[in-house]
Amino acid sequence: VACEDVIVDAANADVDGRQRDRLAQQLEFIAELDRLKHVVRRTPLIDGSRCETDAEHSWEVALMAVVLAEHAGSPIDLPRVVTMLLIHDVVEIDAGDTFLYDDRATTTKSARERAAADRLFALLPSEQAAELRALWDEFEELETPEARFAKAMDRLQPLLHNYRAGGGTWKHLGVDHAKVTERKRIIGSGSPALWAYARELLQRAVDDGVLAA
Amino acid sequence: VACEDVIVDAANADVDGRQRDRLAQQLEFIAELDRLKHVVRRTPLIDGSRCETDAEHSWEVALMAVVLAEHAGSPIDLPRVVTMLLIHDVVEIDAGDTFLYDDRATTTKSARERAAADRLFALLPSEQAAELRALWDEFEELETPEARFAKAMDRLQPLLHNYRAGGGTWKHLGVDHAKVTERKRIIGSGSPALWAYARELLQRAVDDGVLAA
Repeated sequence: VACEDVIVDAANADVDGRQRDRLAQQLEFIAELDRLKHVVRRTPLIDGSRCETDAEHSWEVALMAVVLAEHAGSPIDLPRVVTMLLIHDVVEIDAGDTFLYDDRATTTKSARERAAADRLFALLPSEQAAELRALWDEFEELETPEARFAKAMDRLQPLLHNYRAGGGTWKHLGVDHAKVTERKRIIGSGSPALWAYARELLQRAVDDGVLAA
Repeated sequence: VACEDVIVDAANADVDGRQRDRLAQQLEFIAELDRLKHVVRRTPLIDGSRCETDAEHSWEVALMAVVLAEHAGSPIDLPRVVTMLLIHDVVEIDAGDTFLYDDRATTTKSARERAAADRLFALLPSEQAAELRALWDEFEELETPEARFAKAMDRLQPLLHNYRAGGGTWKHLGVDHAKVTERKRIIGSGSPALWAYARELLQRAVDDGVLAA
Protein backbone atom coordinates (compact mmCIF):
# COMPACT_ATOMS: atom_id res chain seq x y z
CA VAL A 1 0.00 0.00 0.00
CA ALA A 2 2.78 2.43 0.86
CA CYS A 3 4.34 1.55 -2.46
CA GLU A 4 1.09 2.26 -4.32
CA ASP A 5 0.85 5.69 -2.65
CA VAL A 6 4.24 6.61 -4.00
CA ILE A 7 3.21 5.49 -7.45
CA VAL A 8 0.10 7.69 -7.32
CA ASP A 9 2.27 10.65 -6.32
CA ALA A 10 4.54 9.88 -9.20
CA ALA A 11 1.71 9.94 -11.69
CA ASN A 12 0.83 13.44 -10.53
CA ALA A 13 4.36 14.74 -10.41
CA ASP A 14 5.42 17.54 -12.71
CA VAL A 15 8.99 17.68 -13.89
CA ASP A 16 9.97 21.33 -13.65
CA GLY A 17 11.85 22.99 -16.48
CA ARG A 18 15.32 23.05 -14.93
CA GLN A 19 15.09 19.43 -13.83
CA ARG A 20 13.88 18.47 -17.29
CA ASP A 21 16.86 20.18 -18.93
CA ARG A 22 19.32 18.46 -16.60
CA LEU A 23 17.66 15.11 -17.18
CA ALA A 24 17.81 15.53 -20.95
CA GLN A 25 21.55 16.24 -20.75
CA GLN A 26 22.16 13.35 -18.37
CA LEU A 27 20.29 10.89 -20.58
CA GLU A 28 22.22 12.08 -23.65
CA PHE A 29 25.43 11.31 -21.74
CA ILE A 30 24.14 7.86 -20.75
CA ALA A 31 23.04 7.13 -24.32
CA GLU A 32 26.39 8.23 -25.75
CA LEU A 33 28.20 5.97 -23.27
CA ASP A 34 26.31 2.98 -24.69
CA ARG A 35 29.01 3.04 -27.37
CA LEU A 36 31.48 1.66 -24.83
CA LYS A 37 29.82 -1.69 -25.54
CA HIS A 38 31.26 -1.49 -29.05
CA VAL A 39 34.87 -1.12 -27.90
CA VAL A 40 36.43 -4.58 -27.82
CA ARG A 41 39.48 -5.17 -25.61
CA ARG A 42 42.35 -7.61 -26.13
CA THR A 43 41.45 -9.44 -22.93
CA PRO A 44 39.70 -12.80 -23.39
CA LEU A 45 36.77 -13.94 -21.29
CA ILE A 46 37.96 -16.56 -18.81
CA ASP A 47 36.57 -19.39 -20.96
CA GLY A 48 38.48 -18.00 -23.94
CA SER A 49 35.37 -17.88 -26.15
CA ARG A 50 35.71 -14.23 -27.17
CA CYS A 51 37.25 -10.93 -26.08
CA GLU A 52 35.39 -8.75 -23.60
CA THR A 53 33.97 -5.30 -24.26
CA ASP A 54 35.01 -2.17 -22.40
CA ALA A 55 31.60 -2.00 -20.72
CA GLU A 56 31.99 -5.56 -19.43
CA HIS A 57 35.51 -4.82 -18.22
CA SER A 58 34.28 -1.68 -16.42
CA TRP A 59 31.60 -3.67 -14.62
CA GLU A 60 34.09 -6.33 -13.56
CA VAL A 61 36.74 -3.96 -12.18
CA ALA A 62 34.10 -1.94 -10.27
CA LEU A 63 32.86 -5.15 -8.67
CA MET A 64 36.44 -6.27 -7.97
CA ALA A 65 37.03 -3.03 -6.05
CA VAL A 66 34.01 -3.79 -3.84
CA VAL A 67 35.11 -7.36 -3.17
CA LEU A 68 38.84 -6.69 -2.76
CA ALA A 69 38.74 -3.35 -0.92
CA GLU A 70 40.22 -4.85 2.26
CA HIS A 71 43.51 -5.45 0.41
CA ALA A 72 44.12 -1.76 -0.38
CA GLY A 73 47.54 -0.56 0.77
CA SER A 74 46.13 2.64 2.31
CA PRO A 75 42.68 3.61 3.61
CA ILE A 76 40.44 4.35 0.61
CA ASP A 77 37.12 6.02 -0.07
CA LEU A 78 35.61 2.97 -1.79
CA PRO A 79 32.62 4.71 -3.44
CA ARG A 80 35.07 7.11 -5.11
CA VAL A 81 37.11 4.15 -6.39
CA VAL A 82 33.97 2.46 -7.76
CA THR A 83 32.76 5.58 -9.57
CA MET A 84 36.26 6.12 -10.95
CA LEU A 85 36.26 2.60 -12.35
CA LEU A 86 32.78 2.96 -13.85
CA ILE A 87 34.02 5.92 -15.94
CA HIS A 88 37.75 5.20 -16.32
CA ASP A 89 37.51 3.83 -19.86
CA VAL A 90 34.71 5.96 -21.37
CA VAL A 91 37.29 7.97 -23.34
CA GLU A 92 37.95 4.84 -25.40
CA ILE A 93 34.67 5.54 -27.21
CA ASP A 94 36.65 8.13 -29.19
CA ALA A 95 40.24 7.08 -28.56
CA GLY A 96 39.91 3.29 -28.85
CA ASP A 97 41.48 0.71 -26.57
CA THR A 98 45.23 1.26 -26.46
CA PHE A 99 46.79 -2.10 -25.80
CA LEU A 100 49.20 -2.13 -22.87
CA TYR A 101 51.99 -3.71 -24.91
CA ASP A 102 51.59 -1.45 -27.97
CA ASP A 103 54.44 1.01 -27.30
CA ARG A 104 53.77 3.19 -30.33
CA ALA A 105 50.07 3.81 -29.64
CA THR A 106 50.90 4.42 -25.98
CA THR A 107 52.89 7.57 -26.83
CA THR A 108 49.82 9.34 -28.28
CA LYS A 109 47.32 7.78 -25.88
CA SER A 110 47.23 10.59 -23.34
CA ALA A 111 46.42 13.40 -25.81
CA ARG A 112 43.77 11.32 -27.60
CA GLU A 113 42.11 10.40 -24.34
CA ARG A 114 42.09 13.94 -22.96
CA ALA A 115 40.33 15.18 -26.11
CA ALA A 116 37.74 12.44 -25.68
CA ALA A 117 37.21 13.38 -22.03
CA ASP A 118 36.70 17.02 -23.08
CA ARG A 119 33.94 16.00 -25.46
CA LEU A 120 32.17 13.33 -23.43
CA PHE A 121 31.92 14.89 -19.98
CA ALA A 122 30.74 18.18 -21.55
CA LEU A 123 27.48 16.41 -22.43
CA LEU A 124 26.52 16.61 -18.72
CA PRO A 125 25.25 19.61 -16.72
CA SER A 126 28.37 21.69 -16.08
CA GLU A 127 28.94 21.05 -12.35
CA GLN A 128 28.40 17.33 -12.86
CA ALA A 129 30.73 17.35 -15.87
CA ALA A 130 33.42 19.01 -13.73
CA GLU A 131 32.95 16.48 -10.95
CA LEU A 132 33.25 13.37 -13.14
CA ARG A 133 36.07 14.91 -15.19
CA ALA A 134 38.01 15.57 -11.97
CA LEU A 135 37.54 11.93 -11.01
CA TRP A 136 38.77 10.79 -14.44
CA ASP A 137 41.81 13.09 -14.14
CA GLU A 138 42.48 11.74 -10.65
CA PHE A 139 42.54 8.19 -12.03
CA GLU A 140 44.99 9.20 -14.77
CA GLU A 141 47.31 11.06 -12.38
CA LEU A 142 47.66 8.16 -9.92
CA GLU A 143 48.43 10.43 -7.01
CA THR A 144 45.73 9.40 -4.53
CA PRO A 145 45.24 6.06 -2.76
CA GLU A 146 41.87 5.80 -4.55
CA ALA A 147 43.42 6.21 -8.00
CA ARG A 148 46.19 3.73 -7.19
CA PHE A 149 43.78 1.10 -5.94
CA ALA A 150 41.53 1.65 -8.97
CA LYS A 151 44.56 1.23 -11.24
CA ALA A 152 45.50 -1.96 -9.38
CA MET A 153 42.05 -3.40 -10.26
CA ASP A 154 42.45 -2.29 -13.89
CA ARG A 155 45.85 -4.01 -14.21
CA LEU A 156 45.05 -7.10 -12.15
CA GLN A 157 41.88 -8.01 -14.05
CA PRO A 158 43.47 -8.90 -17.44
CA LEU A 159 46.28 -10.73 -15.63
CA LEU A 160 43.70 -12.98 -13.94
CA HIS A 161 41.94 -13.51 -17.27
CA ASN A 162 45.10 -14.28 -19.23
CA TYR A 163 46.26 -16.73 -16.59
CA ARG A 164 42.92 -18.55 -16.39
CA ALA A 165 42.41 -18.51 -20.16
CA GLY A 166 45.69 -20.37 -20.60
CA GLY A 167 47.88 -17.51 -21.82
CA GLY A 168 45.49 -15.26 -23.75
CA THR A 169 47.15 -12.12 -25.04
CA TRP A 170 50.53 -13.07 -23.54
CA LYS A 171 50.77 -15.94 -26.00
CA HIS A 172 49.30 -14.09 -28.99
CA LEU A 173 51.61 -11.14 -28.53
CA GLY A 174 54.65 -13.11 -27.40
CA VAL A 175 55.31 -11.05 -24.28
CA ASP A 176 57.41 -12.65 -21.55
CA HIS A 177 57.55 -12.71 -17.76
CA ALA A 178 59.86 -9.70 -17.50
CA LYS A 179 57.68 -7.55 -19.77
CA VAL A 180 54.46 -8.45 -17.97
CA THR A 181 56.09 -7.86 -14.59
CA GLU A 182 57.27 -4.41 -15.69
CA ARG A 183 53.80 -3.37 -16.86
CA LYS A 184 51.98 -4.82 -13.89
CA ARG A 185 54.16 -3.72 -10.98
CA ILE A 186 52.04 -0.56 -10.57
CA ILE A 187 49.53 -2.92 -8.89
CA GLY A 188 51.85 -2.77 -5.87
CA SER A 189 51.35 0.95 -5.41
CA GLY A 190 47.62 0.33 -4.83
CA SER A 191 47.87 -2.96 -3.01
CA PRO A 192 51.11 -4.62 -1.87
CA ALA A 193 49.15 -7.76 -0.99
CA LEU A 194 47.57 -8.07 -4.44
CA TRP A 195 50.92 -7.46 -6.11
CA ALA A 196 52.54 -10.19 -4.02
CA TYR A 197 49.73 -12.49 -5.11
CA ALA A 198 50.03 -11.41 -8.74
CA ARG A 199 53.76 -12.12 -8.73
CA GLU A 200 53.12 -15.65 -7.49
CA LEU A 201 50.54 -16.06 -10.23
CA LEU A 202 53.01 -14.87 -12.90
CA GLN A 203 55.57 -17.36 -11.61
CA ARG A 204 52.94 -20.12 -11.77
CA ALA A 205 52.11 -18.99 -15.31
CA VAL A 206 55.76 -19.52 -16.27
CA ASP A 207 55.86 -22.90 -14.50
CA ASP A 208 52.66 -23.94 -16.29
CA GLY A 209 54.06 -22.89 -19.66
CA VAL A 210 51.43 -20.24 -20.38
CA LEU A 211 53.89 -17.31 -20.06
CA ALA A 212 57.38 -17.27 -21.55
CA ALA A 213 60.17 -17.11 -18.93
CA VAL B 1 59.70 8.67 -5.85
CA ALA B 2 56.95 8.15 -3.28
CA CYS B 3 55.36 5.79 -5.74
CA GLU B 4 58.57 3.80 -6.19
CA ASP B 5 58.87 3.42 -2.40
CA VAL B 6 55.47 1.83 -2.27
CA ILE B 7 56.43 -0.55 -5.05
CA VAL B 8 59.56 -1.63 -3.15
CA ASP B 9 57.44 -2.32 -0.06
CA ALA B 10 55.11 -4.35 -2.22
CA ALA B 11 57.91 -6.52 -3.51
CA ASN B 12 58.85 -7.36 0.05
CA ALA B 13 55.32 -7.91 1.28
CA ASP B 14 54.24 -11.31 2.46
CA VAL B 15 50.66 -12.35 2.12
CA ASP B 16 49.74 -14.02 5.37
CA GLY B 17 47.81 -17.28 5.38
CA ARG B 18 44.41 -15.93 6.35
CA GLN B 19 44.59 -13.10 3.84
CA ARG B 20 45.66 -15.59 1.17
CA ASP B 21 42.67 -17.83 1.86
CA ARG B 22 40.25 -14.90 1.69
CA LEU B 23 41.86 -13.68 -1.52
CA ALA B 24 41.59 -17.10 -3.12
CA GLN B 25 37.87 -17.23 -2.31
CA GLN B 26 37.29 -13.68 -3.51
CA LEU B 27 39.05 -14.32 -6.81
CA GLU B 28 37.03 -17.52 -7.35
CA PHE B 29 33.88 -15.44 -6.91
CA ILE B 30 35.14 -12.81 -9.37
CA ALA B 31 36.13 -15.50 -11.89
CA GLU B 32 32.74 -17.22 -11.59
CA LEU B 33 30.98 -13.89 -12.18
CA ASP B 34 32.76 -13.59 -15.53
CA ARG B 35 29.99 -15.87 -16.79
CA LEU B 36 27.57 -12.93 -16.56
CA LYS B 37 29.17 -11.81 -19.85
CA HIS B 38 27.62 -14.88 -21.48
CA VAL B 39 24.04 -14.04 -20.44
CA VAL B 40 22.44 -12.14 -23.32
CA ARG B 41 19.46 -9.90 -22.58
CA ARG B 42 16.52 -9.02 -24.85
CA THR B 43 17.48 -5.34 -24.76
CA PRO B 44 19.17 -4.01 -27.91
CA LEU B 45 22.14 -1.68 -27.88
CA ILE B 46 20.96 1.82 -28.78
CA ASP B 47 22.24 1.46 -32.35
CA GLY B 48 20.27 -1.79 -32.66
CA SER B 49 23.31 -3.78 -33.82
CA ARG B 50 23.00 -6.55 -31.22
CA CYS B 51 21.56 -7.31 -27.79
CA GLU B 52 23.52 -6.39 -24.70
CA THR B 53 25.00 -8.78 -22.14
CA ASP B 54 24.05 -8.79 -18.48
CA ALA B 55 27.52 -7.51 -17.55
CA GLU B 56 27.11 -4.54 -19.91
CA HIS B 57 23.63 -3.84 -18.53
CA SER B 58 24.97 -3.97 -14.96
CA TRP B 59 27.67 -1.43 -15.81
CA GLU B 60 25.17 0.90 -17.43
CA VAL B 61 22.61 0.89 -14.61
CA ALA B 62 25.33 1.41 -11.97
CA LEU B 63 26.57 4.43 -13.91
CA MET B 64 22.99 5.67 -14.39
CA ALA B 65 22.52 5.63 -10.61
CA VAL B 66 25.59 7.85 -10.19
CA VAL B 67 24.46 10.31 -12.87
CA LEU B 68 20.73 10.37 -11.97
CA ALA B 69 20.94 10.20 -8.14
CA GLU B 70 19.54 13.72 -7.74
CA HIS B 71 16.18 12.50 -9.11
CA ALA B 72 15.60 9.92 -6.38
CA GLY B 73 12.26 10.35 -4.65
CA SER B 74 13.76 9.94 -1.15
CA PRO B 75 17.27 10.48 0.25
CA ILE B 76 19.42 7.50 -0.75
CA ASP B 77 22.76 6.00 0.21
CA LEU B 78 24.16 6.11 -3.32
CA PRO B 79 27.12 3.73 -2.78
CA ARG B 80 24.68 1.09 -1.55
CA VAL B 81 22.55 1.58 -4.66
CA VAL B 82 25.61 1.24 -6.91
CA THR B 83 26.82 -1.95 -5.22
CA MET B 84 23.30 -3.36 -5.39
CA LEU B 85 23.18 -2.71 -9.12
CA LEU B 86 26.63 -4.23 -9.70
CA ILE B 87 25.38 -7.53 -8.24
CA HIS B 88 21.61 -7.42 -8.93
CA ASP B 89 21.74 -9.73 -11.96
CA VAL B 90 24.52 -12.18 -11.01
CA VAL B 91 21.94 -14.86 -10.24
CA GLU B 92 21.15 -14.97 -13.95
CA ILE B 93 24.39 -16.93 -14.41
CA ASP B 94 22.40 -19.93 -13.18
CA ALA B 95 18.80 -18.79 -13.64
CA GLY B 96 19.06 -17.07 -17.02
CA ASP B 97 17.53 -13.74 -18.01
CA THR B 98 13.79 -13.90 -17.36
CA PHE B 99 12.18 -11.57 -19.84
CA LEU B 100 9.86 -8.99 -18.24
CA TYR B 101 6.98 -9.86 -20.56
CA ASP B 102 7.33 -13.66 -20.25
CA ASP B 103 4.56 -14.34 -17.71
CA ARG B 104 5.17 -18.08 -17.46
CA ALA B 105 8.89 -17.86 -16.69
CA THR B 106 8.19 -15.05 -14.24
CA THR B 107 6.24 -17.39 -11.93
CA THR B 108 9.31 -19.60 -11.27
CA LYS B 109 11.84 -16.76 -11.42
CA SER B 110 12.04 -16.07 -7.72
CA ALA B 111 12.84 -19.65 -6.64
CA ARG B 112 15.38 -20.15 -9.42
CA GLU B 113 17.12 -16.91 -8.55
CA ARG B 114 17.24 -17.58 -4.81
CA ALA B 115 18.93 -20.93 -5.44
CA ALA B 116 21.48 -19.17 -7.64
CA ALA B 117 22.14 -16.55 -4.95
CA ASP B 118 22.66 -19.37 -2.41
CA ARG B 119 25.34 -20.91 -4.60
CA LEU B 120 27.14 -17.81 -5.87
CA PHE B 121 27.51 -15.69 -2.76
CA ALA B 122 28.69 -18.75 -0.81
CA LEU B 123 31.90 -18.64 -2.85
CA LEU B 124 32.97 -15.60 -0.78
CA PRO B 125 34.34 -15.51 2.78
CA SER B 126 31.29 -15.98 4.99
CA GLU B 127 30.81 -12.47 6.39
CA GLN B 128 31.27 -10.97 2.94
CA ALA B 129 28.85 -13.49 1.46
CA ALA B 130 26.25 -12.49 4.06
CA GLU B 131 26.76 -8.81 3.33
CA LEU B 132 26.34 -9.07 -0.44
CA ARG B 133 23.50 -11.56 -0.12
CA ALA B 134 21.66 -9.12 2.18
CA LEU B 135 22.11 -6.41 -0.44
CA TRP B 136 20.76 -8.70 -3.16
CA ASP B 137 17.75 -9.61 -0.96
CA GLU B 138 17.18 -5.91 -0.27
CA PHE B 139 17.01 -5.24 -4.00
CA GLU B 140 14.50 -8.05 -4.51
CA GLU B 141 12.29 -6.95 -1.60
CA LEU B 142 11.96 -3.33 -2.78
CA GLU B 143 11.31 -2.02 0.71
CA THR B 144 14.07 0.58 1.04
CA PRO B 145 14.55 3.82 -0.91
CA GLU B 146 17.86 2.38 -2.17
CA ALA B 147 16.22 -0.76 -3.56
CA ARG B 148 13.44 1.28 -5.17
CA PHE B 149 15.84 3.67 -6.83
CA ALA B 150 18.01 0.78 -8.02
CA LYS B 151 14.90 -0.91 -9.47
CA ALA B 152 13.97 2.36 -11.18
CA MET B 153 17.36 2.30 -12.97
CA ASP B 154 16.88 -1.35 -13.91
CA ARG B 155 13.44 -0.69 -15.45
CA LEU B 156 14.25 2.69 -17.02
CA GLN B 157 17.34 1.50 -18.89
CA PRO B 158 15.64 -0.90 -21.36
CA LEU B 159 12.86 1.63 -21.90
CA LEU B 160 15.45 4.20 -23.02
CA HIS B 161 17.09 1.60 -25.27
CA ASN B 162 13.86 0.39 -26.85
CA TYR B 163 12.74 3.95 -27.54
CA ARG B 164 16.05 5.01 -29.07
CA ALA B 165 16.46 1.77 -31.02
CA GLY B 166 13.11 2.42 -32.74
CA GLY B 167 10.96 -0.08 -30.85
CA GLY B 168 13.33 -2.93 -30.01
CA THR B 169 11.69 -5.65 -27.97
CA TRP B 170 8.32 -3.83 -27.89
CA LYS B 171 7.96 -4.44 -31.61
CA HIS B 172 9.39 -7.95 -31.63
CA LEU B 173 7.13 -9.08 -28.80
CA GLY B 174 4.09 -7.06 -29.81
CA VAL B 175 3.57 -5.44 -26.38
CA ASP B 176 1.51 -2.24 -26.29
CA HIS B 177 1.49 1.03 -24.36
CA ALA B 178 -0.77 -0.29 -21.58
CA LYS B 179 1.40 -3.39 -21.00
CA VAL B 180 4.66 -1.44 -20.93
CA THR B 181 3.13 1.18 -18.62
CA GLU B 182 1.97 -1.54 -16.22
CA ARG B 183 5.42 -3.15 -16.04
CA LYS B 184 7.31 0.13 -15.78
CA ARG B 185 5.24 2.09 -13.26
CA ILE B 186 7.40 0.74 -10.43
CA ILE B 187 9.93 3.35 -11.64
CA GLY B 188 7.71 5.91 -9.87
CA SER B 189 8.29 4.35 -6.46
CA GLY B 190 12.02 5.08 -6.80
CA SER B 191 11.78 8.35 -8.66
CA PRO B 192 8.55 10.24 -9.38
CA ALA B 193 10.48 12.61 -11.66
CA LEU B 194 11.95 9.80 -13.77
CA TRP B 195 8.57 8.12 -14.01
CA ALA B 196 6.96 11.36 -15.19
CA TYR B 197 9.69 11.58 -17.83
CA ALA B 198 9.31 7.92 -18.79
CA ARG B 199 5.56 8.35 -19.29
CA GLU B 200 6.19 11.25 -21.65
CA LEU B 201 8.66 9.08 -23.52
CA LEU B 202 6.16 6.22 -23.80
CA GLN B 203 3.58 8.66 -25.20
CA ARG B 204 6.15 9.91 -27.69
CA ALA B 205 6.90 6.28 -28.61
CA VAL B 206 3.20 5.80 -29.46
CA ASP B 207 3.09 9.10 -31.41
CA ASP B 208 6.23 8.04 -33.33
CA GLY B 209 4.74 4.65 -34.14
CA VAL B 210 7.42 2.62 -32.33
CA LEU B 211 5.01 1.40 -29.61
CA ALA B 212 1.46 0.15 -30.24
CA ALA B 213 -1.25 2.37 -28.66
